[in-house]
Amino acid sequence: MKNEKITSREVDFGKWYTDVVKAAHLASYSSVKGCIIFEPNGYALWEKMQEVLDGMFKKTGHSNVYMPLLIPESLMQKEGELIDGFAPEVAWVTQGGEKKLEERLCIRPTSETLFSDYYHTVVKSYRDLPLKYNQWCSVLRWEKETRPFLRSREFLWQEGHTVHETQEEAEVETKQMLKVYETFFKDYLAIPVITGKKTEKEKFAGAEYSLTVEALMYNGIALQSGTSHYFGDKFARAYDIKFKDRNNQDAYCYQTSWGSTTRMIGALIMVHSDDNGLVLPPKIAPFPVRLIPIGESEAVSEVVACYRHLLEEAGIAVEVDDSTKSPGFKFAEAEVRGIPLRIEIGERDLKENKITMVRRDTREKIFYDLSCDIVKEVKAVLDTIQKDMYERALARREKLTFEAHNLEEVKAIMEHQPGFIHAMWCGDPDCEAKMKEIKGTKSRCILENEKAIDDHCVVCGKEAKYYVVWGIQY
Amino acid sequence: MKNEKITSREVDFGKWYTDVVKAAHLASYSSVKGCIIFEPNGYALWEKMQEVLDGMFKKTGHSNVYMPLLIPESLMQKEGELIDGFAPEVAWVTQGGEKKLEERLCIRPTSETLFSDYYHTVVKSYRDLPLKYNQWCSVLRWEKETRPFLRSREFLWQEGHTVHETQEEAEVETKQMLKVYETFFKDYLAIPVITGKKTEKEKFAGAEYSLTVEALMYNGIALQSGTSHYFGDKFARAYDIKFKDRNNQDAYCYQTSWGSTTRMIGALIMVHSDDNGLVLPPKIAPFPVRLIPIGESEAVSEVVACYRHLLEEAGIAVEVDDSTKSPGFKFAEAEVRGIPLRIEIGERDLKENKITMVRRDTREKIFYDLSCDIVKEVKAVLDTIQKDMYERALARREKLTFEAHNLEEVKAIMEHQPGFIHAMWCGDPDCEAKMKEIKGTKSRCILENEKAIDDHCVVCGKEAKYYVVWGIQY
Repeated sequence: MKNEKITSREVDFGKWYTDVVKAAHLASYSSVKGCIIFEPNGYALWEKMQEVLDGMFKKTGHSNVYMPLLIPESLMQKEGELIDGFAPEVAWVTQGGEKKLEERLCIRPTSETLFSDYYHTVVKSYRDLPLKYNQWCSVLRWEKETRPFLRSREFLWQEGHTVHETQEEAEVETKQMLKVYETFFKDYLAIPVITGKKTEKEKFAGAEYSLTVEALMYNGIALQSGTSHYFGDKFARAYDIKFKDRNNQDAYCYQTSWGSTTRMIGALIMVHSDDNGLVLPPKIAPFPVRLIPIGESEAVSEVVACYRHLLEEAGIAVEVDDSTKSPGFKFAEAEVRGIPLRIEIGERDLKENKITMVRRDTREKIFYDLSCDIVKEVKAVLDTIQKDMYERALARREKLTFEAHNLEEVKAIMEHQPGFIHAMWCGDPDCEAKMKEIKGTKSRCILENEKAIDDHCVVCGKEAKYYVVWGIQY
Repeated sequence: MKNEKITSREVDFGKWYTDVVKAAHLASYSSVKGCIIFEPNGYALWEKMQEVLDGMFKKTGHSNVYMPLLIPESLMQKEGELIDGFAPEVAWVTQGGEKKLEERLCIRPTSETLFSDYYHTVVKSYRDLPLKYNQWCSVLRWEKETRPFLRSREFLWQEGHTVHETQEEAEVETKQMLKVYETFFKDYLAIPVITGKKTEKEKFAGAEYSLTVEALMYNGIALQSGTSHYFGDKFARAYDIKFKDRNNQDAYCYQTSWGSTTRMIGALIMVHSDDNGLVLPPKIAPFPVRLIPIGESEAVSEVVACYRHLLEEAGIAVEVDDSTKSPGFKFAEAEVRGIPLRIEIGERDLKENKITMVRRDTREKIFYDLSCDIVKEVKAVLDTIQKDMYERALARREKLTFEAHNLEEVKAIMEHQPGFIHAMWCGDPDCEAKMKEIKGTKSRCILENEKAIDDHCVVCGKEAKYYVVWGIQY
């Protein structure tokens, strides 16, 4: 029996996705075109992601700051590639109060300019370096087509911006933050990712190079899920960020930036969820456990209170659904909202000295003796769910990962069932353009230190230089 | 000996304030007019405030959400008083990407409109009520004069918005959230506040009434520090938020909103800090303790590591300054940044079996035996600092609180040394206007259930109706 409010994933993936967003009360459309409202369940997921990532950022020596929302046009224009990349998609403030502004201000689409301007004023000596800052904020990009969490005019994100004395140190930072994202996806979101370098065409405007974390959704469409950019001294030259080096000589510093966004919520949905709604990995669920009392007896209340106490003491966040709704309604709600584990406690079961746990991922019922060590059992089941979810996502990705040796093969794969395609590339942007003609297939990233699968480019047949993973992206 | 970079508080309070902001690296000016950059120390304070307040909001049954940054003009205009109040001070987006917009959008100065629009679509029945939401975000008001934390075009805040079935429930909520702010100021910021109702003239645009938390700065200037508004069904009527009540009749619901902002950081500075920089109450300091090793001996490192471990295990956040700077420099830095307690650990002291703690608030040195129970002693000192800071702030406020029986007395007080003035008022806005002529003195709030100090209005001499606290505000 499936949730009636949710279109089947196999029937219409796009409709299924928005149905899940709606049914799980993650977000709703607003009266502001292209902007969504993060409802409590959706925002709680973001808060949990923030908590974990913020801890990882702080552990790697980063501090949070907050830069202004608005950027004067002249400041934005100092670095040419950045403004060229973003100009078509920023929103402009032209009026403040009742006065027309002398210079228009854009709402930040990203904050390299403001951080660089700040670094220009505070970095004087190598002793001031490195500065490793991050900010949590909203950004705005005037997108035409929008889809909740995946693409909207306004979205929430974090953007790290660091400035270093040497190229080496900045490059180490770029790689380190990519690794942080990879770990977060694997260990918390239970999503396997591939990591590598973007091609020249796909890199961030203004970067020397961009590293990326790429995930594959259940339907075989790829999602760029986090990026880490190395800027070299490009921004330092544009914004004049100079310092006295160890030899007391003027030198430009080296910068990085790295970001991840609320589209990670979209990834969670599209990798793990099913026709019954959201499915959350225990380690990212705001409440991994929900206790559901059935009926109103004193014995039931006592067990619920006791379990709650024990689980909370053990550091497991627990919700209790003590509403007056029917048990069936409560189960369905826990299910559609993706609560990893629900524990049903009813008088009939208690008389038989048992309780029932239901895993959300497999919908499997597990019966326990009332005298069991509840903390130990719950921990074990949650660990298993987390591990199984990752394994299932990995198996799905492997099933949808292909090799191609020529354009015909790429076409056959992408038209039949898209996925990641491993194929060699000569490095010519024209060949990238030809791949794009096949249902929008783009290079996702270049893998390094990978054994070549061919000696020729998948498109033109000339000598291959790069091992590339290709995909159709959201 | 005082910090040379900081103007004396007695000489020039305004300059002292900005010197402290700068010397403690709380914020710096940006290239964006009227907007500041929250530097790591300033933002960490805001994060700590968020952590505590957010916990209090969740404990009182509120969930976080996120609404769009932009509000279409037509939506903003539905409630007349609100738009009248805010129109002169909003920023307008008129261009999106390369296209001029058909309808201009304002950057939110506050989000009653968006919450009301959302409630309009989701509230159908009394069963859906109450909805108790909060959001943490930035807002923008096109201020002319700005001062870090106290008044800037963009600032960070939280805004709670709730919707209720009955007037009573909404009024209880309004009072409850005022109480939350009062508790937060008293117990965490160590700032005594007075609470009461705003006069008609001073209330929030669109509110039935506004409750406020008012603090007095060291120099006797008042700071409105948090507000809680009761809207009745005004917004419900403007935005058509109707529901089926328990008798299955259509009814309008009742709403509240309440907010507090980064100006609380300004209050912290202006109530507690001194000529040596910031002074933070232990309960709001991101790191209440800093360990300062003196020299590089193994014995010193061992004690530092041991103390850090013990204190962190006891839940006390500790920073270690193991930089190569000189001890004097390290002490001065801990001082200017307001770290409540620093523990100096040096080889010479260790040989005598002692360590030195220095309280930031009193700059008092306290010597302890190396064998003391460090966790117990640190906890005791931190508690004492927290308590003493509150007591000192209260004593200062009491010293600067006056009674006035006529306009001459008000004038004499405000021209000599401003503060809170208790005085009776007839309720006539003309009398409020006359008070304002005296150095901008405004009603801060109306106290209820207070014994009248006069039977006549302090301005016109007619019958007094309200007991009012007056002050000059930031």
